[in-house]
Amino acid sequence: MSVGKSVSRVDAYEKVTGRAKYAEDLTLPSMLTAKVLRSTIANGKVIKIDISEAIKLPGVVKIVTCFDVPDIEFPTAGHPWSTDPAHQDPSDRKLLNSRVRFYGDDIGAVIAEDEIAASRALKKIKVEYEEYPPLLTPDASMKAASDGAAPIHEQSPANILKHSLVEDGDFNAAIKETGLIKFEQIFETPTVQHCHIESVVSYAYMESERIVVVSSTQIPHIVRRIVAQALGRPWGAVRIIKPYIGGGFGNKQDALYEPLNAFLTVCVGGKPVKIILSREEIFSSTRVRHAEEIRLAAYVRPDGRLVARSYTCYANQGAYGSHGHSTTAKGTNVFRQLYQDEKARRTEAFTVYTNTATGGAMRGYGTPQALFAVESHMEDMALSLNMDPIEFRFKNLMPVGYTDPFTKNVYRQDSFRECVEKCKAYIHWDEKRALYKNQSGPVRRGVGMALFWYNTAVWPISVEVSSCRMVLNQDGSIQLQLGETEIGQGADTVFAQMASTALSIPFEKVHVISVQDTDITPFGLGAYGSRQTYVGGMSISRTAGILKEKILKAASGFLQTQIETLDLINGNIVLKTNNEILLSLDELATETLYSTEASEHITAEATTQAKSNAFSFGCTFAEVEVDIPLAKIKLLDMVNAHDAGSLINPQLAAGQVHGGMSMAIGFGLSEQMLYDEKTGRLLNGNLLDYKLCTIMDHPHLEAQFVEHFEPTTPFGTKALGEPPTVAGAPAIRNAVLHATGVALNKIPMTPQNIFPAFKAAGLI
Amino acid sequence: MSVGKSVSRVDAYEKVTGRAKYAEDLTLPSMLTAKVLRSTIANGKVIKIDISEAIKLPGVVKIVTCFDVPDIEFPTAGHPWSTDPAHQDPSDRKLLNSRVRFYGDDIGAVIAEDEIAASRALKKIKVEYEEYPPLLTPDASMKAASDGAAPIHEQSPANILKHSLVEDGDFNAAIKETGLIKFEQIFETPTVQHCHIESVVSYAYMESERIVVVSSTQIPHIVRRIVAQALGRPWGAVRIIKPYIGGGFGNKQDALYEPLNAFLTVCVGGKPVKIILSREEIFSSTRVRHAEEIRLAAYVRPDGRLVARSYTCYANQGAYGSHGHSTTAKGTNVFRQLYQDEKARRTEAFTVYTNTATGGAMRGYGTPQALFAVESHMEDMALSLNMDPIEFRFKNLMPVGYTDPFTKNVYRQDSFRECVEKCKAYIHWDEKRALYKNQSGPVRRGVGMALFWYNTAVWPISVEVSSCRMVLNQDGSIQLQLGETEIGQGADTVFAQMASTALSIPFEKVHVISVQDTDITPFGLGAYGSRQTYVGGMSISRTAGILKEKILKAASGFLQTQIETLDLINGNIVLKTNNEILLSLDELATETLYSTEASEHITAEATTQAKSNAFSFGCTFAEVEVDIPLAKIKLLDMVNAHDAGSLINPQLAAGQVHGGMSMAIGFGLSEQMLYDEKTGRLLNGNLLDYKLCTIMDHPHLEAQFVEHFEPTTPFGTKALGEPPTVAGAPAIRNAVLHATGVALNKIPMTPQNIFPAFKAAGLI
Repeated sequence: MSVGKSVSRVDAYEKVTGRAKYAEDLTLPSMLTAKVLRSTIANGKVIKIDISEAIKLPGVVKIVTCFDVPDIEFPTAGHPWSTDPAHQDPSDRKLLNSRVRFYGDDIGAVIAEDEIAASRALKKIKVEYEEYPPLLTPDASMKAASDGAAPIHEQSPANILKHSLVEDGDFNAAIKETGLIKFEQIFETPTVQHCHIESVVSYAYMESERIVVVSSTQIPHIVRRIVAQALGRPWGAVRIIKPYIGGGFGNKQDALYEPLNAFLTVCVGGKPVKIILSREEIFSSTRVRHAEEIRLAAYVRPDGRLVARSYTCYANQGAYGSHGHSTTAKGTNVFRQLYQDEKARRTEAFTVYTNTATGGAMRGYGTPQALFAVESHMEDMALSLNMDPIEFRFKNLMPVGYTDPFTKNVYRQDSFRECVEKCKAYIHWDEKRALYKNQSGPVRRGVGMALFWYNTAVWPISVEVSSCRMVLNQDGSIQLQLGETEIGQGADTVFAQMASTALSIPFEKVHVISVQDTDITPFGLGAYGSRQTYVGGMSISRTAGILKEKILKAASGFLQTQIETLDLINGNIVLKTNNEILLSLDELATETLYSTEASEHITAEATTQAKSNAFSFGCTFAEVEVDIPLAKIKLLDMVNAHDAGSLINPQLAAGQVHGGMSMAIGFGLSEQMLYDEKTGRLLNGNLLDYKLCTIMDHPHLEAQFVEHFEPTTPFGTKALGEPPTVAGAPAIRNAVLHATGVALNKIPMTPQNIFPAFKAAGLI
Repeated sequence: MSVGKSVSRVDAYEKVTGRAKYAEDLTLPSMLTAKVLRSTIANGKVIKIDISEAIKLPGVVKIVTCFDVPDIEFPTAGHPWSTDPAHQDPSDRKLLNSRVRFYGDDIGAVIAEDEIAASRALKKIKVEYEEYPPLLTPDASMKAASDGAAPIHEQSPANILKHSLVEDGDFNAAIKETGLIKFEQIFETPTVQHCHIESVVSYAYMESERIVVVSSTQIPHIVRRIVAQALGRPWGAVRIIKPYIGGGFGNKQDALYEPLNAFLTVCVGGKPVKIILSREEIFSSTRVRHAEEIRLAAYVRPDGRLVARSYTCYANQGAYGSHGHSTTAKGTNVFRQLYQDEKARRTEAFTVYTNTATGGAMRGYGTPQALFAVESHMEDMALSLNMDPIEFRFKNLMPVGYTDPFTKNVYRQDSFRECVEKCKAYIHWDEKRALYKNQSGPVRRGVGMALFWYNTAVWPISVEVSSCRMVLNQDGSIQLQLGETEIGQGADTVFAQMASTALSIPFEKVHVISVQDTDITPFGLGAYGSRQTYVGGMSISRTAGILKEKILKAASGFLQTQIETLDLINGNIVLKTNNEILLSLDELATETLYSTEASEHITAEATTQAKSNAFSFGCTFAEVEVDIPLAKIKLLDMVNAHDAGSLINPQLAAGQVHGGMSMAIGFGLSEQMLYDEKTGRLLNGNLLDYKLCTIMDHPHLEAQFVEHFEPTTPFGTKALGEPPTVAGAPAIRNAVLHATGVALNKIPMTPQNIFPAFKAAGLI
């Protein structure tokens, strides 16, 4: 019914009026408050914690330290569990840790009657440390380890969480071809934070022997498992409830403070305890996008054909394992698949523990870093080869018909070219490339672009599964339940659209149960990997099929007709042959439920497993104005074009793109977390000093689409959540190159960072 | 696994520690409070309501009156809907009513920021009435109508809600047999109230266009339908949530203030509004057990064989229809079936509107009144015929093998005799009947007894249906969801026991979802008609069968064996032939959920419809001491014996019996609602002046059981919720007769009521 239309969000009214309930709205004044005692060193050990003064303060209920927690190391990554130990996420942290691994590490917690009492108590706690020098970069960390320093984690004596090396073809042989031109570059990307509007909020309490955690999480069913693991309890003895949440962007695709919160309620006999982080704590002590250093080497024929390339990445994992090597590995995949080297490719990646904030999942999941490097590198090669940068890319791009050997995904249409054409037209590419060719003043303009692809969902890396339940009401409306989560992106709305279309009932008749409650909600993995519309569409489609079959069976009984002659169209039971309306679904539902002959509450539930994913394709084009003396970049215009398959809701799709572009701009131009080198303390962990991209930094953001129905999923849709954020930074960087001739290989391109490059280039 | 054992209640810890959340515990300080404007006349019309002063008070948000509500008359009875208009409950009230029908009727409501502001506003509202004389008894009401007074409801000009007359056999012919002895008596029972501990509490708010009501109700799915009907909204646009509730006993088997509460939140744009009644309001303005006058006539042969009897009942319905004629009709059924007249029976019943509190459902549903009359009448006949009262009963009782023509229930075992033998032995019947024969002092003792039967569930009167859902967790535990409600009686515990047994998993592995949420919870009718264990057992059994089949199918896939060779025993997958454990259910559940080959979230859901009910049988024996000069009865001992089929949890079963006996004692000895004849105002609507039976009024209460597996339901159980309350009053009354020779035909047997009888008998 409504798929493809820009219907209003199902939660629009609730959110606009402030009625929508977020986790903090559900807390009661009587709940206890917990605050985390954080380390004031970045690397070392807690020797002793003296709580004697703190515990005496009025309002303080309980203080627990790293010496009181279960001796269990658990994983935090928001991945489905794997029963194969080789595929499990790193288990490298306890609920509270005496081995301090970053400045702000969790070493204790105060439970008090209110926040003031808790804060006062924190100040009265005395901690003795054994302190080591902070290791803030992969380089420093690996070097220290090889010099015999205490490793950050004992299981990783070299401070390397994981190292991977993949060679496609014979790299060393390939590069021996005569006449190849070698291009070698090093790129650097910063540590950035998600900066979701809503804080990290949870509260926990007990119901009999079970623990309930209400949390602002993207992944309730996964958090349930992790909480149980962390506390050593049966998984069914934990219940996670997820209300509306105000953004996550991957930070909440990790178990953050839910395990500790669960433990703290147990410590006070099951009384409700809440944990609400300050913005400063979110910055210092949740998750970040890994800073990476990426070394690229390419061997190209003079005609522009790539023969072999190598990619070497050092990712700053920070203090704990979280998603481990996955994000780094995803970056290598982007490198390996976007462009097809004729002979060989070599990808090597190191994920390295350091004493900084833990790298986790963040929108784009390793690809913004990789594509910044790859798309900058391609641009520079084209320039050097004196080729058109777009044509250079197409010469080496995955060809139409390309099948990825690992995922079996097929590049079916010429989506890249269609997207590029749309963006070129929008931004007047050819005119501006010519117009901005020979500028000489202090303020110069340029246009640049970058391509991207992004896969949908996580098969075959992990199990990819979604379950759905539908409940028919007496008025012919349904409730729709999925484990997939609304995190602000509009998921509930597109789920309702898909259900309405799959069943052929009016959109208004679909009531989405937005709250996930792991006791009740069908199992789903949650919001990540740009998976939900793709995989949720599968379970919605299958469940709708089962529900429809049950409806038609009931109708055939009630009408005394053959089920084969009936259909459900627009909320009515009709004769298939001529669409004659026989009765409405509400009449049928009521008659069936209250039938004294054959009463039935018609519901349906099904699990679907995806054994495919799909590549989304697209590009970002940007126009900039560079004030050379001020070393300042102003973004004038930006356009993204996406082939994300068929759009379920074009307006929501555009909204996703706008948000992703905004994150890309911040990543490229202003955002970075800065650490004090001596102490390892975060210097700018707040929204004043951390320069988050805001609406004041945006030009008009243009979202365009190429719609090719994706045949591997019922509604023909594919990844759109993350792709918009991955190619913005290199597009801006390439526009700056166009404007100034200066190739900036380190982001963010702040005045501080670009001034030296302009100076070196003789522009200043 | 656990059926038949007295396992601890699943909610024991929650309730003992105060953690269990009731509706009021879930309210937030920020919610608005509504208080109902109640009429200060019992019969008449509201002419005008002046809110001008009240609305100006600080904190007052909105005032609505009977002139502001939708022009919709709706039913309130907690019955399943019937699509046959002839079977629908009376629709005779609006949300607020200008036609005042009792003192305390709902004529307006104030919504304020807090209770104090709301209460102040109520006092400032000025109401003008047109007043008619209050009609407090069926007699007065019918007479006034025939004298031309304005009827209480226009649809019932004679003030008779319904009249029924059933004749089995030719009564007039039967009584012409020569030699018959005629016994004619009139019995009177009082208006009593349920006095559940928790008040009538609800709060309502809107989610987009939908209305959510959180309520202390026994019947969430039914209340949903009624709220929608009352407001003229689609049924799916209403959502009812039922947390733990502190008793209902039938009062909450009605839509009480949920419809008004839903309307009030709409009036304030969906802001949360709560309504919490005071105890006084519960007495005056919710539901009560109908007072009845029952006229019995019996025609008996000198050998004690009943030839024909007639039963004429006038039930005081009070102001509104509620459950209508159903309770009165159920009384007539008790009369018709317990004893089998040889030739004919005549039953006539009038349910009459009056200007008192509305008669609704209350534990026993019309049978405590009917059995007080029938079992007193039988006793007096036996005495008069100089027969043993027990043998006189057995001479006329339904015989073993009796099949009820309407319900097709069979009296399979000689349960009555077995129950009587148990009670006789317990109370030393034969010795005491002899010992107390010829007493003469001022204080005398006696023993008495009464029989009862009670049917289980409501088929074939209404549709009788239960749905269930089970969700398997990775640790082999399950969540269990039913529409049937825990109202304090222990339903959740017996459901968990049945699920554990049906699946063969440990009891601790069943997590009952106690909260019903009509958006999510499988459809069930709720707590009434002593139906839940009987009907819930059916849906639990069927759903467990489906779940087990899915589990074994997954196991056969995982183990690569034939499903036919496998079984689930005690939480393990075993080989059927030798019970060898192949793997545990938790391993299987985990492997299945995370299988990269065939992931499935194993759940099951099913509706079962009961097309049977079952008779429970039993008796109450009592021993009393009567202080004749003080006209005071002291209960010395009391025993109930029940054939309620197989017991799921003997300790909880005994608990049900104790509670029921307590209600029976109050009904017989002390409880009655008294109205001022001039104004129609309730005189004793509080727990000081209304003499509720308390533990101080109890002797030891003995519960004994005769267990005969009931073959029409999987766990062999039948009615136990209501039966314990139905035969206590006549047993006490018959014991008083034994002690004093005085036949008391009016309850409660307070000193005020029995003094005249003792005086008339020459005892005082």
